[in-house]
Amino acid sequence: MPRTAETASFKFNHTMLRVKDPKMSLAFYQDILGMDLLSKQDFSDFTLYFLAFNHEGKDLTAKEKEATRFSREGVLELTHNHGTESDSNFQGYASGNTDPGKGFGHIAITVDDVEKACERFEKLGVAFKKKPSDGKMKNIAFILDPDGYWIEVVPGVLNL
Amino acid sequence: MPRTAETASFKFNHTMLRVKDPKMSLAFYQDILGMDLLSKQDFSDFTLYFLAFNHEGKDLTAKEKEATRFSREGVLELTHNHGTESDSNFQGYASGNTDPGKGFGHIAITVDDVEKACERFEKLGVAFKKKPSDGKMKNIAFILDPDGYWIEVVPGVLNL
Repeated sequence: MPRTAETASFKFNHTMLRVKDPKMSLAFYQDILGMDLLSKQDFSDFTLYFLAFNHEGKDLTAKEKEATRFSREGVLELTHNHGTESDSNFQGYASGNTDPGKGFGHIAITVDDVEKACERFEKLGVAFKKKPSDGKMKNIAFILDPDGYWIEVVPGVLNL
Repeated sequence: MPRTAETASFKFNHTMLRVKDPKMSLAFYQDILGMDLLSKQDFSDFTLYFLAFNHEGKDLTAKEKEATRFSREGVLELTHNHGTESDSNFQGYASGNTDPGKGFGHIAITVDDVEKACERFEKLGVAFKKKPSDGKMKNIAFILDPDGYWIEVVPGVLNL
């Protein structure tokens, strides 16, 4: 049961990350991870991109994608502050995993076959923080998105 | 349709944030936001807490909660590095929204009634970054979790 009636409608809708270059990020999240772009919101100084995995197997219209943006969980919001992509003085965003700036850790995707997913990532030129074969935990990996954010790759079924 | 067969199984499973004091964080995420603790994983130097909203309205056994941890979206992982809660030299974690350390932005919860949810948060002593009445966007708010991470509160239905 939901813990209280007052919070029964609550959902963990999205996580927001700032990105330097939306072309690089969209190529990564759409073509390599396989997320769909649900919505693009243009403002004068910035643009927001909302992405999510389409599990339902339905082809959604643009209007349905837009409507689903706030009605589901597992949405990723990417914020692009205009100009960072071509600013040679821009230092890049903190990944959250080193000081100063430590706090945020990572996002994680579950996949049916970590080994196979990682072989494909490697072929597509994705940078790894930890390959499945590194370290003690053989069945998890960490890849890096174009800004250096860590993405954990874990099996979607846990063997208890 | 999923974009490719190779990514059809992928889910955006969780987002990980480091927290200073799990007692404070669990009180916030469980009692104020209404999330359920799915799993607690103890290691020698750190403990992981996995939380999610229970939308299904079913009472899950501990084993079912543990199994659901990697089979759904919308999971929040909190990492507690032992000792930070009582270390007077600990500076706290970066929220991701100020330099240095900027990159991560926020997590967001959708609710059926932003105004009502925020009245309840206020009664419960939650700190606000932006109340619904502040600024131009009257129907969204930002609250702060015990570590100062921003949590956007947005309506779960978008009027197009």
